[in-house]
Amino acid sequence: MDEELGGISEEYYDIPPVKYEYLDHTADVQLHAWGDSLKEAFEQCGMAMFGYMTELEYVQIKDVHTIEASSDDLMGLLYHFLDELLFLFSYEPFLICKKLVITEFNTQEFKIVCKCYGEEFVIGKHPQGTEVKAITYSAMQIIDDPKDNKYEVFVIIDI
Amino acid sequence: MDEELGGISEEYYDIPPVKYEYLDHTADVQLHAWGDSLKEAFEQCGMAMFGYMTELEYVQIKDVHTIEASSDDLMGLLYHFLDELLFLFSYEPFLICKKLVITEFNTQEFKIVCKCYGEEFVIGKHPQGTEVKAITYSAMQIIDDPKDNKYEVFVIIDI
Repeated sequence: MDEELGGISEEYYDIPPVKYEYLDHTADVQLHAWGDSLKEAFEQCGMAMFGYMTELEYVQIKDVHTIEASSDDLMGLLYHFLDELLFLFSYEPFLICKKLVITEFNTQEFKIVCKCYGEEFVIGKHPQGTEVKAITYSAMQIIDDPKDNKYEVFVIIDI
Repeated sequence: MDEELGGISEEYYDIPPVKYEYLDHTADVQLHAWGDSLKEAFEQCGMAMFGYMTELEYVQIKDVHTIEASSDDLMGLLYHFLDELLFLFSYEPFLICKKLVITEFNTQEFKIVCKCYGEEFVIGKHPQGTEVKAITYSAMQIIDDPKDNKYEVFVIIDI
């Protein structure tokens, strides 16, 4: 279907006006975290989220905050845990966490208390990664398999 | 819930190992194009797609190729039209189009013949935009309203 341009008149070089635009760009990324316990997998998942927002090697531990999350089931607990962490970053103290230590991990009453170590996000000091817009339940998976010593979580976040 | 770090022992500065990874990043963008006819809206939509792959001001008209697309309905026609254009870019001749002229636009038998003007994509000459992975039917809209002289299309492409 190729043709030569040789015989084509000048008008073909006219460029049409632009009558288009690009709308709403949406994207997501899936976090996959694991550990020697489900608790550790949750902690790692939270750190994965912060690691997406900046490069954690630039973050120092200068500050600690405690968050609590609760829900009616395990997936809800993971969701709210991450959502609380996102809140730490999105509002004062704008904390970027390099380390998370869950001090209470209650999978019967679905409650988490977590110490969050890091520092205030400072543009210039901390490379700007990708903004995390929301946690989602989409394709969420929690593998809690003590028999095979397998503890993993998969969470899709909107970016 | 703030705490001071003063009384916290050294072990709190230990950084945990990384036990997480980022999987499959997915994204999309919606193209919105319009014109004084549905034919022009289709042409503009194709140019919008190429405009996302590179900056069209760097593209010269050096070559012309003809594509054909057909389908069983109008949405299918738009889909296949864009897919043929994507194919032009993705395989030889790796054509980036700056101008599209639909020479046959049959909305009864759902057939398009289109002349595609542009040149071979050359890294270095043409800024690399975003790779278009696929056309989708997701939320596709075709507004074909001669009464109000309104011709618009909306197409989401995977990037």
